[in-house]
Amino acid sequence: MKGLVLTSQGKIEIVKLEKPQLDQSQVLVKLKAAALNKRDQFIREGKYPDIQMNAVLGSDGAGEVVEVGSKSHEKLIGKTVVINPNINWGDNPDVQSRNYSILGMPTHGTFAEYVAVGVDRVHEAPEHLSLEEAAALPLGGLTAYRACFRHGKIKANDNVLISGFGGGVAQFAFQFALAANANVYVTSGKKEKLNVALKMGASGGYNYKSKDWYKNLWQTKGGFDVVIDSAGGDQINNFLKIMRPGGRVVFYGATNGLPTTLDLYRMFWNQLSLQGSTMGNDEEFAEMLTFVEKKKIKPVIDSVRPFDEIVSAFDDIASSTKSGKLIIKF
Amino acid sequence: MKGLVLTSQGKIEIVKLEKPQLDQSQVLVKLKAAALNKRDQFIREGKYPDIQMNAVLGSDGAGEVVEVGSKSHEKLIGKTVVINPNINWGDNPDVQSRNYSILGMPTHGTFAEYVAVGVDRVHEAPEHLSLEEAAALPLGGLTAYRACFRHGKIKANDNVLISGFGGGVAQFAFQFALAANANVYVTSGKKEKLNVALKMGASGGYNYKSKDWYKNLWQTKGGFDVVIDSAGGDQINNFLKIMRPGGRVVFYGATNGLPTTLDLYRMFWNQLSLQGSTMGNDEEFAEMLTFVEKKKIKPVIDSVRPFDEIVSAFDDIASSTKSGKLIIKF
Repeated sequence: MKGLVLTSQGKIEIVKLEKPQLDQSQVLVKLKAAALNKRDQFIREGKYPDIQMNAVLGSDGAGEVVEVGSKSHEKLIGKTVVINPNINWGDNPDVQSRNYSILGMPTHGTFAEYVAVGVDRVHEAPEHLSLEEAAALPLGGLTAYRACFRHGKIKANDNVLISGFGGGVAQFAFQFALAANANVYVTSGKKEKLNVALKMGASGGYNYKSKDWYKNLWQTKGGFDVVIDSAGGDQINNFLKIMRPGGRVVFYGATNGLPTTLDLYRMFWNQLSLQGSTMGNDEEFAEMLTFVEKKKIKPVIDSVRPFDEIVSAFDDIASSTKSGKLIIKF
Repeated sequence: MKGLVLTSQGKIEIVKLEKPQLDQSQVLVKLKAAALNKRDQFIREGKYPDIQMNAVLGSDGAGEVVEVGSKSHEKLIGKTVVINPNINWGDNPDVQSRNYSILGMPTHGTFAEYVAVGVDRVHEAPEHLSLEEAAALPLGGLTAYRACFRHGKIKANDNVLISGFGGGVAQFAFQFALAANANVYVTSGKKEKLNVALKMGASGGYNYKSKDWYKNLWQTKGGFDVVIDSAGGDQINNFLKIMRPGGRVVFYGATNGLPTTLDLYRMFWNQLSLQGSTMGNDEEFAEMLTFVEKKKIKPVIDSVRPFDEIVSAFDDIASSTKSGKLIIKF
């Protein structure tokens, strides 16, 4: 079979590989669609811990079960499924175990014709979605779901700010918060992305490149209950200025690096919290799929390309001009 | 009656005042004992928001109800009570309302012969405590209770680190965490205070003035589930290094100022949180008293002095050499 691997830092190539051998606990999925995440490009660039060469990349995928490792799983053959990319989350719902990893480096991932995964990793895809759309969900949807609901505790009528609208996780967080009937606001560095958000139902949009974008937000909007962020840097302190007392800043990344201070005074007097988050546990993955199905949420797709053009998709995700998932079709 | 007021910045004086007049919702408490908090000294020094001159200071007090504003509260007369220092917490258990204040500036407080408080502010003092001990509880006990249990979620067998052992709130947090059967460790800048903590049941003590005090703690102790802090500054990042994944740093002050960075990467990958906290709601005040009574917790008293010597107690609390509450007896 063909699969995409990292052959040296910065270099990804489609190579010929053996079709995976299954153990008894596994099933073989013939991929119909896969999706890119920033994680994949970070691995390509060497900006990810514990990089191993020659593993098939890709965390997001959907396809058809074509083989099972144990007779007792035979009824799965022919099912179309979406794959939970968690490997060994462990028993503690609050946090991943030390053996935790994500599908697609070190374990062979979804950018290949076939992938072997644990039988408990495959879920029926939500009925209202095409397989291309379902393939867009796993990593981004799971990360957004945990950030929004476990940590952010977003509920109806909350004022929620999603920073960096357009990124995969931010887009899901935006859709999930809207579906929970919150008042959802966004920030972006690009006017076109703000317009997209407003069309999709945002109550307001702010360009974080304009000085003092956060000023007066406190008065005009009454402050935010929840901010979902992945940029970090000194904007963190601006968020603290526009939170309602008791509010929560949840972040799942820090692409702008670390802040040069943190306003602890404001945090304790207003009982604010800053909560780090990454991925989500297996129950949250199942809940996320149910929520997406119930609320008829459709992932925003930027483009669908054949597997042979996957390297161009990596180049595009690096440039961050895209809003919406980049999908690979097999 | 006599009462202690701030007459100009830095200057506190015992002056003669009118005995308070009650409205229908109030009772008059003849104070038997009061206790000092750092808040009182911060007000004296002008390091507190919205300072007003000539208000009677003091948030902690216990005494006897001697008058009631309404006949329907007559049965309270003669009861010995401890006073909840919250004024207008409001309806949201998560956070105080905008009208919130603390007894003792702007509202006349407990450093006087009498204090008028709302009838719902007085609680029976825990039976196992003297009135001097009961008077030590309110502000510090409430702040510690919320930090430990609402935000810290401390439970049996958790590894808990209390920083700055010896401060009023830290001392209560230490006793509460021990009573909850956690493994409790402390930091202090003074060896004697560490020894006191070890005698009281600490599993370990670390001098934060020694370089790299936190190093290897991760390996030897398996990391901390909860840190309770009020110093802030750059130690925050050291705490993040010794947390177990999913751990919580709860802080109710920042006496060492703000940090110069914050390790967001570690926070999101290990799902850590940083939670600001201040005081606690009225339900927590009642729960704290019940907890203290059930666990037979005795506040640590440094000294008991007559009201006429209260200014010396302020001087002592400023120097922070004391561990244990400074009590005023009337």
